Amino acid sequence: MTPGPRRVGRAEPAPIFSALGDPTRLQLVDRLVRGGPQSITRLSRGFPYTRQAITKHLRVLEDAGLVRGMRRGRERHWKLEATRIDVARRYLDHVSSQWDAALDRLKRFVEE
Amino acid sequence: MTPGPRRVGRAEPAPIFSALGDPTRLQLVDRLVRGGPQSITRLSRGFPYTRQAITKHLRVLEDAGLVRGMRRGRERHWKLEATRIDVARRYLDHVSSQWDAALDRLKRFVEE
Repeated sequence: MTPGPRRVGRAEPAPIFSALGDPTRLQLVDRLVRGGPQSITRLSRGFPYTRQAITKHLRVLEDAGLVRGMRRGRERHWKLEATRIDVARRYLDHVSSQWDAALDRLKRFVEE
Repeated sequence: MTPGPRRVGRAEPAPIFSALGDPTRLQLVDRLVRGGPQSITRLSRGFPYTRQAITKHLRVLEDAGLVRGMRRGRERHWKLEATRIDVARRYLDHVSSQWDAALDRLKRFVEE
């Protein structure tokens, strides 16, 4: 069985998961979802990292389509792209529902 | 604002996301959820990678608690740990519901 084109869609969330695979980036996502679009100055507050390090994390999230940078006044502001979170969510929902279906089949098999 | 202990729970799914952040590993998860516990021989079938490469990917998934290796007969079998998928799912559900709540607040603010 060779991985066919049908699988491409399945693999598509990989870059999103990869970008979310870091505690600092999860905290940035958390701040953006709770605080709305905000500047790098506000986003960096309280982190034991330099602005440069935070910017690097934001670029990783941006490459995965999870955040977007916008020019607003003097400073670049960042906003969350919630639709990309949904791509990852839908993938995990799909895995879970397949898992539940497999358990149901096993249960029926045992009962019959 | 210093990241407090409350945030530890939020950051906890990071290793799970990191492990899911690779197309081959997503395909392995997909095979395990559809085919149930299976040997490395069966899991490797159709992949353009060596058994060693597949085993390495399985170890990454194992370190994140997403799969478990079991001795069964001559060969090690691997099974999915669906509860860990749920940890990641719950995190994304939490982000989405916070996002929806933020949009609602914004809508009320604009309307008032």
